[in-house]
Amino acid sequence: MDSRIEHHARIIVEWSIEIKPGDMVTIATSPAGHDLAVAVTKEVAKAGGRPITMMLSEEIDKAKFDGASEEVLELFPKHQMAIVENSDAFVFIRSPVNTRALASVDPKKVMLERKTIREIVNLRLQKRWVLTVHPCLSLAQQANMSLEEYQDFVYRATLLDWKKESKNMYLIKEHLEKHKDIRFVGPETDLWASTEGRIWLASDAKHNLPSGEVFTAPVETAVEGKIYFDIPFLQQGRVLEGVRLTFEKGEVVDYSAEKEEGTLKEILETDEGARRLGEMAIGTNRGITQYTLNMLFDEKIGDTIHCALGNAYKDNNGTNESAVHVDMIKTMIEGEITAGDEVIYSKGKFFYENE
Amino acid sequence: MDSRIEHHARIIVEWSIEIKPGDMVTIATSPAGHDLAVAVTKEVAKAGGRPITMMLSEEIDKAKFDGASEEVLELFPKHQMAIVENSDAFVFIRSPVNTRALASVDPKKVMLERKTIREIVNLRLQKRWVLTVHPCLSLAQQANMSLEEYQDFVYRATLLDWKKESKNMYLIKEHLEKHKDIRFVGPETDLWASTEGRIWLASDAKHNLPSGEVFTAPVETAVEGKIYFDIPFLQQGRVLEGVRLTFEKGEVVDYSAEKEEGTLKEILETDEGARRLGEMAIGTNRGITQYTLNMLFDEKIGDTIHCALGNAYKDNNGTNESAVHVDMIKTMIEGEITAGDEVIYSKGKFFYENE
Repeated sequence: MDSRIEHHARIIVEWSIEIKPGDMVTIATSPAGHDLAVAVTKEVAKAGGRPITMMLSEEIDKAKFDGASEEVLELFPKHQMAIVENSDAFVFIRSPVNTRALASVDPKKVMLERKTIREIVNLRLQKRWVLTVHPCLSLAQQANMSLEEYQDFVYRATLLDWKKESKNMYLIKEHLEKHKDIRFVGPETDLWASTEGRIWLASDAKHNLPSGEVFTAPVETAVEGKIYFDIPFLQQGRVLEGVRLTFEKGEVVDYSAEKEEGTLKEILETDEGARRLGEMAIGTNRGITQYTLNMLFDEKIGDTIHCALGNAYKDNNGTNESAVHVDMIKTMIEGEITAGDEVIYSKGKFFYENE
Repeated sequence: MDSRIEHHARIIVEWSIEIKPGDMVTIATSPAGHDLAVAVTKEVAKAGGRPITMMLSEEIDKAKFDGASEEVLELFPKHQMAIVENSDAFVFIRSPVNTRALASVDPKKVMLERKTIREIVNLRLQKRWVLTVHPCLSLAQQANMSLEEYQDFVYRATLLDWKKESKNMYLIKEHLEKHKDIRFVGPETDLWASTEGRIWLASDAKHNLPSGEVFTAPVETAVEGKIYFDIPFLQQGRVLEGVRLTFEKGEVVDYSAEKEEGTLKEILETDEGARRLGEMAIGTNRGITQYTLNMLFDEKIGDTIHCALGNAYKDNNGTNESAVHVDMIKTMIEGEITAGDEVIYSKGKFFYENE
C-alpha cells in the first residue's frame, strides 16, 4: 500500500473518528475510493473496531432516481436507518465515479429523497463521522490536473499535523469570541457583520478531511458593506466567477457576477433566507494553495475567507433558514480581518504569527 | 446500459428474488460488479423496492484479517446483523477484484470470522437471496478468456428462459423422487448410492444465477463403486485434475488424482465426514459448455454430474457433517443415469427428451 494512503487512513482512524476497541464502524466509498477503504479497514481493525463497507456511486443513485416513483422515494429505507443506529462511527470517502452523473435528475426527486432520509442523516450527524476524498480520476478532471498532480494536491492538503493545526484554529476561535463582530477588508471589499450571541467553530479535521476553517453564522439582519469573491466556484454544474455583493441590514441589495450572473440571480431568488448570509469563515489550510472547484478543499484554502448565502448551522447558534447554502471564497493575502478592535489577520499573517 | 446487463438485472429482480412494492433490498457488489449493481438498482426501484448497496472486496477482507486480532474477529458486527434483520431480499454480485487476494490469510482467522458471523448468514439464508456474477477481468483471467469472450460465456449461461428451465428440472426431481437410489454409469465409472429418505432439489435460479442442477444428499453410509471426475476444479488455490475415487459402505477406500493428489489427500483427511459424499447432482444448464474453474458455473454444465465430498445440506435431509464441501464434476455425454429401474438420462438426453 502507498504510504500516503496509509498515512491518510491513520489520520482518519486515530484523529478524526478516534476508533476504540468495540466500535462498530461503517465506511462508505465509491469504487474510485476503494484503496483508501482498504487502508481504513486495516487501521480500524488494528484499533479494535469492526468495519463494514457501503458502496457509494452517483451512477447507482441516478439509477434509483430513474427507476423510482415518488412513492418509492417516500418509502423509508429502514435497512439504511438500521446501519446508522448500529454504528458508532462513519467514514465517507467522496471520490465520485462521475461528478456529473446526476445532472439530468429532476431536483424535485432529489428534494423528496432528502426529506425521506432526513431522520437518518440527523442521527448520523450525532455520531462520530468524517468526510474525506481519495484522489481519483473524476476529481482530477474537475480540478484540471493529471491524476499524479491531483494526488500530490490532496496529500499536501490532508497529511498535516492536525494537532498543531487544531491548536492554531482554537487560538483564532478564542480571540474571535472575545468580540461581537467581524470585518473583512481588502480589494473592493469592506464587509462588517455582528456575531453577537453566535458561536465560532474550529473545523480541525474531526468531520472534514482536509479541514482548516474557523466559521460562524453572522446575525442575518446585521451585515453591512460590500465584498468581491475572486475565486470561481461550482453551483448546479455551472462555474460562477467574480461575484460582487452589497449588503444592507443583512440583505443583498445589489449583486453582479463576471460569469453566470443568471445562476447567481436564481440562487438569490430561491427564498427569503437565500439573500442573507448563513456563514462567515476564515480558511487556514496552507497546504491548499489553489482552487479545484471542490468546496471540501476550496473553502479551506489558506489566506482566504468565505461567506455562504443561505442556511446557517445550528451549531453556530445560527438562525437564518434557506433551502440553499452557497459558499463563495475570497483571497485575503492583501486584506485584513478584524474583530472589535483586534487585528486577527493581516496580509498573510495571523496575530499569533507576529509574536 | 448494455441490454444484456439490463436483461440480467430483470431476471434477478423479477425471477430470482421476486421484488414487490415495499421490499427493502440489499445489493452487495465489488467495484468490478458496479455496472450490474446500477442495473439491479433501477429494476428494484421500478418494482417498488428500496435498494441500498454494500461494497464487497477481497482486498478489504484481506485488510480486515491483517489488521484484526482474534478478539476483533470474535466481536459480533451488530451493524452487519442489522442490515440483514431489516432487509427482505439480497443480491450478491460475486465479481472479485482479485480472486487470490486472500491466499496468504491464516485459515484459522477465516474460520473464526465465519463462526462470528454464522448467525448473520443463517438469518440471511431464511430470506430471499441470489448469488450471481457480473463478467469482470479477474474471472475472465481465471477462465483463460478475454473479457469479451467471458461476457459471452456468462450471458449464454445466465440469460435463459428460467421458467422453462425450472419446469424441466422439476420434472427430473419428480422422477428421481419416485425411487430410492441413484446410479451413475460411464467411462471408468459405476457409482451407486441410496437416496432413501433424502430430498431432491431443483436449483432453478432462485438462489444461484446461472443455475441448473438437480441435487440431493445421498445416504452417507450407502455409496458403492467407483467414479472418475474428468473436469479440473480449483481447491485452496490449486487445480486438481483426473480424480478417481472408490467407495465401500459410503467411505472412500481408494483414491488418486492425475494432478495435485496431495491436495486430494489433505481434503480426505480433514475429518471423518470428508471421506463421504455430502452431495450427488445432475447439471442441466446447456448454456454452459466448458469449465472455467468457477464452481457457480462448472457444477451446472449441461450433460454432467457432480459429487461433493464432505458436508451435506439440511434442505436435502442430509446428515453427513464436515468442515469441507468439495464438488467434483464428470462429463456424462457418453454415460447413463438411472434411478431404481428408470433411465433418467442417457448419452445426451433426459427421459423427457425422448418422448
